[in-house]
Amino acid sequence: MSDKPADNLDLTLYLVTDRTLAKGRGLNDIVRAAVAGGVSCVQLREKQCSTRQFIDLARSLRSTLQSMNIPLIINDRLDIALAIEADGVHLGQDDMEIRDARKLVPAGFIIGISAESLEDAIRAEWEGADYIGISPVFQSGTKTDTACPLGLTGVKLIRSAVKMPIVGIGGINRENAASVISAGADGIAVVSAIVSADDPQHAAGELRQICENALGTRRKK
Amino acid sequence: MSDKPADNLDLTLYLVTDRTLAKGRGLNDIVRAAVAGGVSCVQLREKQCSTRQFIDLARSLRSTLQSMNIPLIINDRLDIALAIEADGVHLGQDDMEIRDARKLVPAGFIIGISAESLEDAIRAEWEGADYIGISPVFQSGTKTDTACPLGLTGVKLIRSAVKMPIVGIGGINRENAASVISAGADGIAVVSAIVSADDPQHAAGELRQICENALGTRRKK
Repeated sequence: MSDKPADNLDLTLYLVTDRTLAKGRGLNDIVRAAVAGGVSCVQLREKQCSTRQFIDLARSLRSTLQSMNIPLIINDRLDIALAIEADGVHLGQDDMEIRDARKLVPAGFIIGISAESLEDAIRAEWEGADYIGISPVFQSGTKTDTACPLGLTGVKLIRSAVKMPIVGIGGINRENAASVISAGADGIAVVSAIVSADDPQHAAGELRQICENALGTRRKK
Repeated sequence: MSDKPADNLDLTLYLVTDRTLAKGRGLNDIVRAAVAGGVSCVQLREKQCSTRQFIDLARSLRSTLQSMNIPLIINDRLDIALAIEADGVHLGQDDMEIRDARKLVPAGFIIGISAESLEDAIRAEWEGADYIGISPVFQSGTKTDTACPLGLTGVKLIRSAVKMPIVGIGGINRENAASVISAGADGIAVVSAIVSADDPQHAAGELRQICENALGTRRKK
């Protein structure tokens, strides 16, 4: 386990991986560049590969991220997260329930939840999630099986209802990132805005700056 | 956890589920009938559903099997096996490695391994598997991504090389079941021979009797 427990988790710029959008480039290379640019947290998301391949990928990414002191969260597969001693797991509404997961994980292990509605968000907080990824904030080209976009109104509504950290995901880019933070999110999660960028480090750097500016403005208010 | 540790595992007639072959019938009903007929161990195998659905199915099946004192093994997904307190996990050559799995499971938890060759079998024993499923013994219609059939010669070869319990799988039916036991397997694993049978209880009963007879003949020798 990393020495970065859930309460120190920095969600400012949260990268969710998707190898199919990497334009043939290696995932480790993209992630390393993205972290150099300003990514503060990485979620490995794999839906098509075998368990063995997923573990190999995760272990390799963990090694990369550990040396950069950045937490690694595994999407869905708690067995893989535990096997490679990841920092946490991210669970969707079709994945394991928090109460089942919490029994299996060590203290300080991060459990993030995807919330697609105010109800999901309130339940996740009540059940003890460490953070929620609220999605989709905007229409996204990356995931096609998503619920109706929450919009900035949805972000504000959820922000007013829960105290836990919130990261917005879905269709977020440098044009609209600041508005998501201004609406109350603690950070933004992106996939294609970094994974598909010609220069992932530059793209991450720009997004990080936008987030930091928006967070700074919010704090002054 | 069940009070049936790995060393009491009865592999005589091992049912591997496949809902797509169930002809629209409920899995719990088929499994209950199969156990009444003589199935001694059940592996839940799901490749298409969400984690949440898999857990719901597994929990329901566990409840059914617990009342009949029959162990439940989960295919591939150790997270699900741990969450529902299954008796064990069955790992293929593309799944988690034994050394990773063993660190995460309680004492007495069964770890079965698919072996497609003599080398796989020897390595599985060396790494501490509780049993191996050697596959495919014969050509199977159920799984299409399998290696070249081992045949009865392969069963004999593996039997001579490892001490751990062996269950044969792949194309086994009432015509050839006795030959697999005679070649040295401790039991047979079947999918369609029971799941697709018009009368799963009767099919299981016939297979069990064939296995018991063949095991009896082998012991006399």
